[in-house]
Amino acid sequence: MYNHSRNKTLGKTLAKTLVAAGALALASSSSATAGGSKVTWEDLLNDHKTNGDVLSYGLGLKAQRWSTLDQINSDNVGRLTPKWSFSFGDEKQRGQESQALVHNGVIYVTASYSRMFALDVKTGKKLWQYSARLPEGIRPCCDVVNRGAAIYGDMVYMGLLDASVVALNKKTGKVVWKEKFGDHEAGYTMTGAPFIIKDKKSGKVMLIHGSSGDEFGVVGRLFARDPMTGKELWMRAFVEGHQGRLNGKPSTYTGDKKAPSWPEGDYKNTGKVEAWSHGGGAPWQTPTFDVESNTIVVGTGNPAPWNTWKRTKKGDDPRNWESLYTSGQAYVDPTTGDMVGFYQHTPNDAWDFSGNNEIVLFEKDGKKYGAHADRNGFFFVTDQEKLTKRGGKINRPLSLVAAHPFVPDISWAKGFDLKTGKPIEVEGQRPPMPEPGKKQGKKIQVTPNFLGGKNWNPMSYNPETGLFYIGANHWTEDYWTENITYKKGAAYLGQGFRIRKQFDTHIGALTAIEPMTGKIVWTAKEKLPLWSGTLSTKGGLVFTGTSDGYVKAFNAKTGKELWKFQTGSGVVSIPITWEMDGKQYIGIGSGYGGAVPLWGGDIADLTKPVSQGGSFWVFELPKELAAK
Amino acid sequence: MYNHSRNKTLGKTLAKTLVAAGALALASSSSATAGGSKVTWEDLLNDHKTNGDVLSYGLGLKAQRWSTLDQINSDNVGRLTPKWSFSFGDEKQRGQESQALVHNGVIYVTASYSRMFALDVKTGKKLWQYSARLPEGIRPCCDVVNRGAAIYGDMVYMGLLDASVVALNKKTGKVVWKEKFGDHEAGYTMTGAPFIIKDKKSGKVMLIHGSSGDEFGVVGRLFARDPMTGKELWMRAFVEGHQGRLNGKPSTYTGDKKAPSWPEGDYKNTGKVEAWSHGGGAPWQTPTFDVESNTIVVGTGNPAPWNTWKRTKKGDDPRNWESLYTSGQAYVDPTTGDMVGFYQHTPNDAWDFSGNNEIVLFEKDGKKYGAHADRNGFFFVTDQEKLTKRGGKINRPLSLVAAHPFVPDISWAKGFDLKTGKPIEVEGQRPPMPEPGKKQGKKIQVTPNFLGGKNWNPMSYNPETGLFYIGANHWTEDYWTENITYKKGAAYLGQGFRIRKQFDTHIGALTAIEPMTGKIVWTAKEKLPLWSGTLSTKGGLVFTGTSDGYVKAFNAKTGKELWKFQTGSGVVSIPITWEMDGKQYIGIGSGYGGAVPLWGGDIADLTKPVSQGGSFWVFELPKELAAK
Repeated sequence: MYNHSRNKTLGKTLAKTLVAAGALALASSSSATAGGSKVTWEDLLNDHKTNGDVLSYGLGLKAQRWSTLDQINSDNVGRLTPKWSFSFGDEKQRGQESQALVHNGVIYVTASYSRMFALDVKTGKKLWQYSARLPEGIRPCCDVVNRGAAIYGDMVYMGLLDASVVALNKKTGKVVWKEKFGDHEAGYTMTGAPFIIKDKKSGKVMLIHGSSGDEFGVVGRLFARDPMTGKELWMRAFVEGHQGRLNGKPSTYTGDKKAPSWPEGDYKNTGKVEAWSHGGGAPWQTPTFDVESNTIVVGTGNPAPWNTWKRTKKGDDPRNWESLYTSGQAYVDPTTGDMVGFYQHTPNDAWDFSGNNEIVLFEKDGKKYGAHADRNGFFFVTDQEKLTKRGGKINRPLSLVAAHPFVPDISWAKGFDLKTGKPIEVEGQRPPMPEPGKKQGKKIQVTPNFLGGKNWNPMSYNPETGLFYIGANHWTEDYWTENITYKKGAAYLGQGFRIRKQFDTHIGALTAIEPMTGKIVWTAKEKLPLWSGTLSTKGGLVFTGTSDGYVKAFNAKTGKELWKFQTGSGVVSIPITWEMDGKQYIGIGSGYGGAVPLWGGDIADLTKPVSQGGSFWVFELPKELAAK
Repeated sequence: MYNHSRNKTLGKTLAKTLVAAGALALASSSSATAGGSKVTWEDLLNDHKTNGDVLSYGLGLKAQRWSTLDQINSDNVGRLTPKWSFSFGDEKQRGQESQALVHNGVIYVTASYSRMFALDVKTGKKLWQYSARLPEGIRPCCDVVNRGAAIYGDMVYMGLLDASVVALNKKTGKVVWKEKFGDHEAGYTMTGAPFIIKDKKSGKVMLIHGSSGDEFGVVGRLFARDPMTGKELWMRAFVEGHQGRLNGKPSTYTGDKKAPSWPEGDYKNTGKVEAWSHGGGAPWQTPTFDVESNTIVVGTGNPAPWNTWKRTKKGDDPRNWESLYTSGQAYVDPTTGDMVGFYQHTPNDAWDFSGNNEIVLFEKDGKKYGAHADRNGFFFVTDQEKLTKRGGKINRPLSLVAAHPFVPDISWAKGFDLKTGKPIEVEGQRPPMPEPGKKQGKKIQVTPNFLGGKNWNPMSYNPETGLFYIGANHWTEDYWTENITYKKGAAYLGQGFRIRKQFDTHIGALTAIEPMTGKIVWTAKEKLPLWSGTLSTKGGLVFTGTSDGYVKAFNAKTGKELWKFQTGSGVVSIPITWEMDGKQYIGIGSGYGGAVPLWGGDIADLTKPVSQGGSFWVFELPKELAAK
């Protein structure tokens, strides 16, 4: 309607324009002046120590989400107040799950529908906007979310829903390169934040990113790229016996070429069952990086299909068929892209527990550990020395140090046997096969449900309290098997479910846990599911968001809620903090969506009153409390 | 996707669901507990005096938008901070032009796409949501906006884009009645807030509302309804010689049945030119009400088509053909629905100046006046005694008391002649007819442009400073005629245009004007157009919003900007204030849209970086500054 001379055709055209959602795409401006200076590897290496910026998903390579800023603290956090808010616009809302980055006075935040915004820290003014033009037929399982960007040199990077990665000039938002890594119509997509590492051996800085799509029967893949050009350096497939790629050529097999953890069969001349060709394991969350051992650490997705019997030799015990390397934590060598170590949280995962959740690297008494709160309800502590060691068997159950339940009444396993490193499964908790002639198997109840004791929303670690802070959920499900055959682009589950309440009082449970003992020090309950990451600060605080719209701060020691602010839509993103000109800020996105309203059964109904939204918020203390 | 058993068809279905904008309609909750007690006529009569609620568009029947609250004042407004924000959600954004109402702890705010929300004042929690199901083929000229609700008894009322009015139970949001008043495919629509009055003679409380659609050649109509049932009491057509309706039967003609202000012609046996049958004059903004004289006061829309020659006898001077009763202020008797008085701001309006803007009723030295800032650039003061008097000629040019320019360099008229009450037109400022054989007439420059020195965004009056505060704009346009023939549902303009900048420095100009002298006491300039209403308070403040996202407070005496907050999308709504439990609040919507991005030519381009949005905000002082 900008064309004034078209006013004769205003009638129908305008009416249509106006009612068509998203009609008026407000295009991007590129009057950026901020955003200068390049981000170096040293900047990224020190991200956890420098308070003036946020350069990595996880606020550092170990993803502890810990800041030594303490201007905002338990004494004054009650006075925290919005500095500004920014609307993502475009008549596009849905889930906003992004963790923002901050560099040189500019916030880089991704948004639903594969968008990125560069915002001026001081005013919230939009410097530029990138909106991917998405093709028909994309298949994000769990909403059109994006979880964040990576930054390096003069570029920012993000994954797109059409299974590609894009590099943008950080000053202008213009595309520098774009690489497609999978067939989006088959189910490949990307929602996780990419990650920058440096390979100690080659000296190459690399952009590492995974793929999503386990619910559609694609094989999970991890990629390394040249951040300057987007060129693939290597690719690692996460199903045992699938081949990787190095410098454009086929490389090693993942683990044993014969894939003994998957049954033999006659699917398309593979000698394996159908599931092996479509086996999932997607590393869709963001890795961490152990600099000393030069190892990428990343969670691997659920096996596909969900149905355990499709991955078990007929008549045999599923526990004999682990579906490697799914539902575990994988250790990958950046020089070769080879998998060098693995610990499986849920062998032959029958419950879509997946293993994607972040592995936070931390030290205790001079020893290096990985901490991981799994959808299966257990908090895993793993021995990093054992898992990053080169050579020997890749699957290392004995690297388990501890597996503590962090949600109540876990039904599928009594615990983990530290002698074997494996779960002590409860009989009857693998949903049985349908009886002959039936479409569905017998319904059983499983706790936690497949959305997990904790889902993607990352936890944080406070080295001063020694506690991890988990956005956990207490819920259960009815679960049953269904017959399934792979069909490209269709859901590949073989499982039916109904997510249900476990308690009348709450679902969400912000949980402070001591990693070595498993002691739950405190729990703060929420009526709706928790789907927001946590942030820990030296101010003695834990920040998170709630599905009913609040950003909240808790006392890290006691769990007392000290502050909240209502943002108008559910908060399912990740808080960050940084300082600028002597003042500490908190930043977080608001906008409800994600897996719960799509898959959550009874709980989805509970969240119906929550408005959709799409905004980014910056909070600060009043002037008199934020002394320079 | 809530149906868990449908997971086999998840693939394509889910993908489609997820990319289709607005796919997941988050349905409304109706767990309302607040919102009790009925609103009486006395409540409405005293709305301007009672600070605990906001019950009418205009904050009182005279629409002065003046509050005697002063807890927030020029000393402490710099400390104003958001209390909460609410997202309208639904993947529906665009222009949010609504003025909210407040009653009994509940905010009733309408939103784009004909929605209404009931929100808890204290928490921002949604109590219920109403979303009209809009048909195909609606024709809002200037975005899918809504400007607000009316409240009476236990109902709230709003107009819908499909040319209907709906009454909702204010506790539940359920539809009590819905009345269609026009053919939306012909161009009838409704974006203005309805208004409650009480007819002194019959004692009947009435819901008064207008229609929109001048750009599509529909005849403007004002309606009175029984607020309990929605039944039409009367209808008044605003083109001279058209007939009204009373109690379901044809009633009086509007003015002279022969309509001497429109040329004779041979259109469809009317004896008149085509334009007379499609003559516009829509009263699409909200009336005010003079209780003493029992008179509804409302602005009337532009004549249709815009092209002056289509409403002028061939070869004659347009000034001899006034196109009554368009582009003026109309006075209507609530008992009969008869028009009883009229003053025309722009006789035979050739510029789409329209006359819709609100007529604010005020007193000075014991005399009653109407104040009106017109799109034509003049601030009109009219004599209410003369205009509300019953009997005699309806069109009363001599009721003009003053017409002051409130924007610079008005090009179409030198001023108004108080002896005739008519403009002193500048020759050559009516865009000339196309030369024979040409499609377009010669281009001329007109100031202000058709979006006006001030558009719909209502001004406020501060009886203590004696000033009116106008969200004015300084801009110009290229203007030319085009040939036009009426076609149902198509734009009926006969005019082409290109909106342009007048100054490099600014467009918006918040303007404080003394009504009797026309003295402009101060002006606060804005880079982008002002499209937000103003609010005046005893705290010595003027509140308004800006297209670049700020809510701002100004010193009422000096125009000094004292406070601003960035809401993330353009603010084009109307601020309100009220108190609850001893604390004063400010409420305002955020969400860019309206006529400027659709019609604004060069200025639309300027606004492209502004994000769309859809949220409501409540602001408060920190606890220590808001003593009970």
